[in-house]
Amino acid sequence: MSHPPSTLAVVGVGLIGGSFALAAREAGLVDRVIGIGRSKANLDAALELGVIDASSHDIAAVADADIVLVATPVGQMARLFDAMAPYLKPGTVVTDAGSTKSDVTALFRAHLPGHLEWCVPAHPIAGSDQSGATAARAGLYRNRKVVLAPLPETRPEVLERVDALWRACGARVETMSAEEHDAVFAAVSHLPHLLAFAYVDMVSGKAHAQRYFDFAATGFRDFTRIAGSHPEMWRDIALANRAALLDELASYQASLARLTALVESADAAAMERLFEEAREARVKWHERFEASR
Amino acid sequence: MSHPPSTLAVVGVGLIGGSFALAAREAGLVDRVIGIGRSKANLDAALELGVIDASSHDIAAVADADIVLVATPVGQMARLFDAMAPYLKPGTVVTDAGSTKSDVTALFRAHLPGHLEWCVPAHPIAGSDQSGATAARAGLYRNRKVVLAPLPETRPEVLERVDALWRACGARVETMSAEEHDAVFAAVSHLPHLLAFAYVDMVSGKAHAQRYFDFAATGFRDFTRIAGSHPEMWRDIALANRAALLDELASYQASLARLTALVESADAAAMERLFEEAREARVKWHERFEASR
Repeated sequence: MSHPPSTLAVVGVGLIGGSFALAAREAGLVDRVIGIGRSKANLDAALELGVIDASSHDIAAVADADIVLVATPVGQMARLFDAMAPYLKPGTVVTDAGSTKSDVTALFRAHLPGHLEWCVPAHPIAGSDQSGATAARAGLYRNRKVVLAPLPETRPEVLERVDALWRACGARVETMSAEEHDAVFAAVSHLPHLLAFAYVDMVSGKAHAQRYFDFAATGFRDFTRIAGSHPEMWRDIALANRAALLDELASYQASLARLTALVESADAAAMERLFEEAREARVKWHERFEASR
Repeated sequence: MSHPPSTLAVVGVGLIGGSFALAAREAGLVDRVIGIGRSKANLDAALELGVIDASSHDIAAVADADIVLVATPVGQMARLFDAMAPYLKPGTVVTDAGSTKSDVTALFRAHLPGHLEWCVPAHPIAGSDQSGATAARAGLYRNRKVVLAPLPETRPEVLERVDALWRACGARVETMSAEEHDAVFAAVSHLPHLLAFAYVDMVSGKAHAQRYFDFAATGFRDFTRIAGSHPEMWRDIALANRAALLDELASYQASLARLTALVESADAAAMERLFEEAREARVKWHERFEASR
């Protein structure tokens, strides 16, 4: 694909932003990358590793960019959008990598109201236990999903440009509304994290918790892995996606109450049916999931 | 360790019983193994693989044994205990491998009332996705836990003999009451299985479930792995350990209601504290768990 020379500014050069920079450049869609951030050590590492070509602590550096990827925690975006607003050229594409979308959409509206036609809220579904520029790699997004949640104001050609960039990184792009995004991720990601946190909280609150932990095995290990996730990050996600998450929590509590009633009434047939249907759905999901990777 | 020649009868020559036979013989504590079961194909395979030395479809074969391991589903034990009672010599040790213990204790009492001093209810914490005699291996129990839940009537030297057998298989043996066993396993094993089944049931019951499943990733994968478990087996466990499981379900529902209230009131600090404490407990558990394997 031929294209005019293009400069990418990455605000927050961590695993997510750095990997996007590496992949977009490798794909030939980006010629120059400016890294913008607060940590000199991280920006220096990014320069040294060739993740970025230039670095700045000053958000004004977005003035030189054709595309700006804001890859910081969502909590920093209001301040950053405000700060970059005076420097953005008309036509500069602004996109993000936040894991919730209704709240980010509201931030775009509140803090970049004059720039909405060039804004594309987005959520790359990738991550790892590692973080920082040194963890960045061009292959991070290969076969990973990226959700784009364009605004009504987003120009079609701007959406298409962000779509093409992510596809060039190897990602499979899906477009949906911010509301649908948040409902889906509340159910398949945010809810299980909260269920796992609540479960470990329950066990560790027992009078002789260690006696219980001593007999926990591989089922426990896998079920609770996500309870080892980053507390601040999950606090922020739970707050950011509060409405959808409360819906899913209510739905789960109803589902668990139904199962509890089956145990209470010792309804063997209904219990087996529920387990069998869940098992079938899980086995089918897992086959598709592994085949897609 | 020197010992008199000893014959082991394994009722139900699957992964659990077959692996015990291989390990006990490898350790030199068993000289001869009789496999008792219904499937000719499975017994023939066990003979061919050297898991057993002789096979029988007739429970009367326990008459030749010094030790009988009943390694069938708990649902078959009442019938098997009844059937073997007339053939058991005084002094023949009878033990099991069921994953619940209060109910098995009751079965020993009801169906082998004249033999209790030689009975040791037990639960080896091992298993795998495989089953059948062909899956048996001597190393299955190495560093795995085995819980012994002796009856008040169990003779000390009988308990010691079963303890020594499992230790010779490489297992780490813990002794506790059937009630404590069932409370502990309700919390760390049975409850998470039910939580995972209820969760997959909830997601797959959604109007556009496939759209949700499409965005499930590795967190979902690990959290739901145990929802792929055997439905009949978990139906039986839920029924067998119903009382303890209902306690744990109530406790979890209370824990989840507390977390839901924090989300509802957007109590960021309390939420972060809960996540942080759960994360710490899980990280600490995981380190100990991996170090013990």
